[in-house]
Amino acid sequence: MTKNGKWVLRHRPQAALVETDLDWVQEALPELRDGELLVRNIYLSLDPTNRIWMSDREQYLPPVQIGDTMRGTTIGVVEQSRSDRFAPGDIVMPAMGGWQDYTVSPERMTRKLNVAPGIPLTAYLSVLGPTGLTAYFGLLDIGQPKEGETLVLSAAAGAVGSIAGQIGKIKGCHVVGIAGGAAKCDWLTEELGFDGAVDYKAQEVGAALDRLCPTGIDIDFENVGGAIMEAVFSRLNRNGRMILCGLISAYNDEGPVPGPADFGRILMQRLTVRGFIVIDYLARAGEAFADLGRWIAEGRIKWKDHVVPGLEKAPDSLQLLFTGQHDGKLLIRVSDEP
Amino acid sequence: MTKNGKWVLRHRPQAALVETDLDWVQEALPELRDGELLVRNIYLSLDPTNRIWMSDREQYLPPVQIGDTMRGTTIGVVEQSRSDRFAPGDIVMPAMGGWQDYTVSPERMTRKLNVAPGIPLTAYLSVLGPTGLTAYFGLLDIGQPKEGETLVLSAAAGAVGSIAGQIGKIKGCHVVGIAGGAAKCDWLTEELGFDGAVDYKAQEVGAALDRLCPTGIDIDFENVGGAIMEAVFSRLNRNGRMILCGLISAYNDEGPVPGPADFGRILMQRLTVRGFIVIDYLARAGEAFADLGRWIAEGRIKWKDHVVPGLEKAPDSLQLLFTGQHDGKLLIRVSDEP
Repeated sequence: MTKNGKWVLRHRPQAALVETDLDWVQEALPELRDGELLVRNIYLSLDPTNRIWMSDREQYLPPVQIGDTMRGTTIGVVEQSRSDRFAPGDIVMPAMGGWQDYTVSPERMTRKLNVAPGIPLTAYLSVLGPTGLTAYFGLLDIGQPKEGETLVLSAAAGAVGSIAGQIGKIKGCHVVGIAGGAAKCDWLTEELGFDGAVDYKAQEVGAALDRLCPTGIDIDFENVGGAIMEAVFSRLNRNGRMILCGLISAYNDEGPVPGPADFGRILMQRLTVRGFIVIDYLARAGEAFADLGRWIAEGRIKWKDHVVPGLEKAPDSLQLLFTGQHDGKLLIRVSDEP
Repeated sequence: MTKNGKWVLRHRPQAALVETDLDWVQEALPELRDGELLVRNIYLSLDPTNRIWMSDREQYLPPVQIGDTMRGTTIGVVEQSRSDRFAPGDIVMPAMGGWQDYTVSPERMTRKLNVAPGIPLTAYLSVLGPTGLTAYFGLLDIGQPKEGETLVLSAAAGAVGSIAGQIGKIKGCHVVGIAGGAAKCDWLTEELGFDGAVDYKAQEVGAALDRLCPTGIDIDFENVGGAIMEAVFSRLNRNGRMILCGLISAYNDEGPVPGPADFGRILMQRLTVRGFIVIDYLARAGEAFADLGRWIAEGRIKWKDHVVPGLEKAPDSLQLLFTGQHDGKLLIRVSDEP
C-alpha cells in the first residue's frame, strides 16, 4: 500500500517559520471513491501567501487549521482514476494539492493541463500559472496602464513582478524594478528589457527612483510594503494607482500591517489604492493565458523557475521568499516528471 | 471710491486658525480693464478645504501665499462690467471670489448663474454648487453604489455627506450616517430618510455600526479620518470601496495624515481606496446639476444652509466646521441679496 508523506501544520508561526511549526507525517492513502483521482504531485508552488495561510490573521481564505495538511498549489500526474474524464498519465492541477506526495482530488475540482510543446511543466505553476495570472490581471485590470506612463514594481525580479514588468513594457510603459542585488537588477535591465532597476540592498531607493523616474511614478505594482512601498507611494503622481498585490515584508509579523505614512496623499493626489487576489480572476484565466502564451512564443516574456528538489525541503525553502535568496519562481520538485 | 475689505493670510496656522493668522485689510479697488467685471460678493462658502489652503502641506492647489487674499468660493452680483457678456445686476460665480467684499473677475473665468424660481441663492454654493457636485461624483463615480449595498458616511449631516446619503437612498442603498449630536442624527433619519444614524459624541461608533449594518459595509464615504474612519474601514466588506473625500480630523494638524491601522485589509478584502477632488469634475457639472435639480424638484433631496452674517465673522466661523457646531452648509453673508 502506498504511503503518503505530508507536512502538517502543528503551530502557527510566531515570526519566520521554524522547524517545529510543521510536522512530517506519513500515512496510508485512502481507497478512492467514485469520481476521485489519485494524483502523484510533481511540483509544489511555494508562494508568499503560504505564510499568510499558516497564520490566523484576517485573510482571503480560511487559515489552514492546526493538524491539517499544509495548503499549496501543485501539478501532478494521475496514477489512479475513478473518473471517466481522467486517465492515468494525465497531467493535472488539483484544486489544492497540498504539501504532500499524493493528493486525492475530486474530478470536478481538477484541471487537466494541455502542456504545449517546448513549454516546461514548471511553467504551469509560474508564468502560465497563478503567478502569471496575478501579474496579468493585477497590472492590466487594477493598474490600467497607459502608454508612456511610469510603472515601478517592488520584488521586481520575483515570479509576479518580473512578468508584470514585461507586460508593462509590452503596453508601452517606462518600467523600473526594485530588486535585491546587482545580479537581479542586471537580469531586469539586460534580459527583460526594464528601463531601470534599483538595488535596494545597495542603493537609497528614493534617490534612485528620483533619478530613474524623472516624470514621477504613475503606477506602483506593490508586492512588498514597508519602507520600499513608502518610497514609491510618496512619489506617485496625480491620479496614480497602487496595485496592492502583496505585502511580503509584513507576512512574518503578527498584528496590523502599516500603510504609507501620509494617507492624505491619496486624497490630495487623487490616488487609487486597490487590493486584489488572483483567485477572483480564475474564471477569466483563458484570456490571460492566450496573451501570455502568445507573448512567450514571440519571445517578449521571459521567466525563470527555481526548483528545489525534495518535499522535505519545503519548510526551509519557503524562507527563501522572505530573504530573496531564490532566483525565479520558487518550486519544490516533489517527484520526477513522467 | 469704493473700498474693498478683505482677509489676508498673515501666518500659516499652527493648529486651529487663530485671530492673528489673518489680517483685515481695506484697500481701494483698481480701475477695471477691458473684459473685467466688478463683482460685489453676496455669499462666501466656508469649507474644510479652506484650512488646507492656509497650510503649506502637499495639496491639490497652490497654497495661499502669505500676504495674499484668502481664497474662497463666492456668489455675487455684477456692479460694473467692461464685458459684453455680463451686465450690472447679473448674478455670477467668479472663479475664486476670495474672502473679500468685492472681486475683480475676468469675464472668461466668471460663470453666470441662472437662478431657478423657488431656489434660494445660497443653494448655488451648496446643493447646486461645489458641495453638491462633490457628493454626486464622489458617491456615483468613485463609490459605484449598487442597489442593496450598505453605505456609511462620516460627517453625514454636513453639506456633502447629507447630499451623498440622500443620493445613496435614491440609488437603493442601505444608508447609515455618522454625525455629532442627537439633533443631527434625528434630522438624518427623520427628515432625510437615512436608515440609521450614529451619534459619535454619545455612542461607541463601532458597536453602533455593527448594529445598524448587519451585513457589513460596502461603501465608506469618508469625510473625517481618524478613529471614525477606522471604525468604518475595519468593517468594510470584500470588494468594499472607500470614497476618500475629506480628512477633516487632520486638517488642523501639521505633518502626515495617518491612515487605517491595518493596511493589509485592502489586500485581503480587495478594497479600493480612492481619493478625489471635485475640481476634476467641473467639466461634467451639467450632468450632476440636471439630476440634482430634478431630485430637488421631486422632493427627494433636502438640504440646509447655515448663513452667518458679516464677512468679519469668516475666521471665527471657519472653526465651526471643525467643532461641528454649524447646522448645514456654512456660508458667510458678505452683503445683501439684490
